[in-house]
Amino acid sequence: MKIGRVLWNGAPRLALIDEPQQSALLVEGELANHPNPVLAVIERGLSAAQLMALGTTPVPLAGLAFLAPLSALVRNVFAVGKNYHDHALEFDKSGYNATTSSASAIPTHPQFFSKATGTLAGPRDAVRFDPAHTASVDYEGEIGVVIGRRCRNVSKAQALDQVFGFVALNDVTARDLQKNHAQWFLGKSLDTFCPLGPWIGTPESTPIETLRVRTWVNGELRQDAPISQLIFDVPTLIETLSRGTTLLPGDILATGTPVGVGLGFNPPRFLRHGDRVRVAVTGLGELDNPIEAP
Amino acid sequence: MKIGRVLWNGAPRLALIDEPQQSALLVEGELANHPNPVLAVIERGLSAAQLMALGTTPVPLAGLAFLAPLSALVRNVFAVGKNYHDHALEFDKSGYNATTSSASAIPTHPQFFSKATGTLAGPRDAVRFDPAHTASVDYEGEIGVVIGRRCRNVSKAQALDQVFGFVALNDVTARDLQKNHAQWFLGKSLDTFCPLGPWIGTPESTPIETLRVRTWVNGELRQDAPISQLIFDVPTLIETLSRGTTLLPGDILATGTPVGVGLGFNPPRFLRHGDRVRVAVTGLGELDNPIEAP
Repeated sequence: MKIGRVLWNGAPRLALIDEPQQSALLVEGELANHPNPVLAVIERGLSAAQLMALGTTPVPLAGLAFLAPLSALVRNVFAVGKNYHDHALEFDKSGYNATTSSASAIPTHPQFFSKATGTLAGPRDAVRFDPAHTASVDYEGEIGVVIGRRCRNVSKAQALDQVFGFVALNDVTARDLQKNHAQWFLGKSLDTFCPLGPWIGTPESTPIETLRVRTWVNGELRQDAPISQLIFDVPTLIETLSRGTTLLPGDILATGTPVGVGLGFNPPRFLRHGDRVRVAVTGLGELDNPIEAP
Repeated sequence: MKIGRVLWNGAPRLALIDEPQQSALLVEGELANHPNPVLAVIERGLSAAQLMALGTTPVPLAGLAFLAPLSALVRNVFAVGKNYHDHALEFDKSGYNATTSSASAIPTHPQFFSKATGTLAGPRDAVRFDPAHTASVDYEGEIGVVIGRRCRNVSKAQALDQVFGFVALNDVTARDLQKNHAQWFLGKSLDTFCPLGPWIGTPESTPIETLRVRTWVNGELRQDAPISQLIFDVPTLIETLSRGTTLLPGDILATGTPVGVGLGFNPPRFLRHGDRVRVAVTGLGELDNPIEAP
């Protein structure tokens, strides 16, 4: 199933997405007015068939206004840095990594950080920054994982059973803050710095091995990598993260960005007001966010 | 006002603490059954007088079982590392900081990270770890700040107006994870790794300049520092954190730990099952947490 939220007649509605038919099915009944309906679907473990049984209204997909699939984040986004080989190299070479820990740029353990909940933005919302706060805003197109079940101490073998689905995500980053404050949290946590959506695809509709992330800035392709290039794959990330730490339904895990971010250019090509960043993940639609002033 | 939650006749109750009278006032009315009553008080901006007007039942303070003041965290705890001079030195000297960013151990910018929401523990709850996950669990006694208002781009001059109160906090840390994963989030985020309480004191009852944090392990004093020793003071932390990032009522900010943590000893003195860690902040009571297996 592919599931998200759309704006219909001025109100947010839970929707199932049917790309082949180029339609969305607005789910009727109790969930139609739920404040965070996709989270409710995840927490209750509802299937597409169960949602269909609530009654649906088909509407054309073309021109539909998608909202962030989650109305609000359960808590901070879990994220991992330097998880693609060539990106790890470009990041350390850039001078913006204040936290290089060894002779090698390639990490031996996944480097987890978090993004504050206020970062959540919809697939067409503006990413906003004040040039007085940062002069080096950068994109990071990523494949996001949505946790489906409360879980802890999950083995690699069981890890994908805990996944509800996948989603496109832009881990927007203020490089100067990331560098100056050494720990990455602050530079990753500005309001609107985590566009998410347009919809979540469950593994049976979007098998993990088919996922590929691509990023464009003003129409120019900057990033393009399959999920197979991850240094630490999704089962490893879930196993590592859940050792002693409970994961919750609706938790988002950003799996890292491939080579091609703005800081990798010489000189760096940071985002400016008026720019437009698109992030597409195979089968999961596309984020298309303008960069604007607050 | 000093406000918290206690267990009374088997149920959690909102309570005002009157130390001079050695009593607690259980608040009656609608808030008595609220799932997160202290958060409700913060969000609604209720005063002690308004709470008293709801009706209260006095009970003796002695022997009262305190719970974490917040039933659940709004989102991840905001925290800052290396914010006391001598602790910054002991940390870098220990070899457990994979993220030293410059020739000097003393940071030029506050190093913010977060702790996942599952870390929340009450003032008498066990801190639990599995030796298979970490062999170097350490205490960090800290002064916590509780944000009172939704705010963003707060100046230093306005910062303390955004504060609801202060609270004792133990930023428990798995040093091996903190080191291996470079970013500190993972080693800071294990379940039960953030004891909080026993109560929150508002600035008029516990003026910020009077705050002093002390930590004992098995009765031995290990840490003892006044808030005046912070490298980055609370107004600076709030100003820095809120630049472009919205803070929410009920957000917790852990302000950093003074010299004297276990890794500062040679050899390090990490926590073992059966140990007991107490953290006291002037006027804010005392955490007293046993260290146990999961």
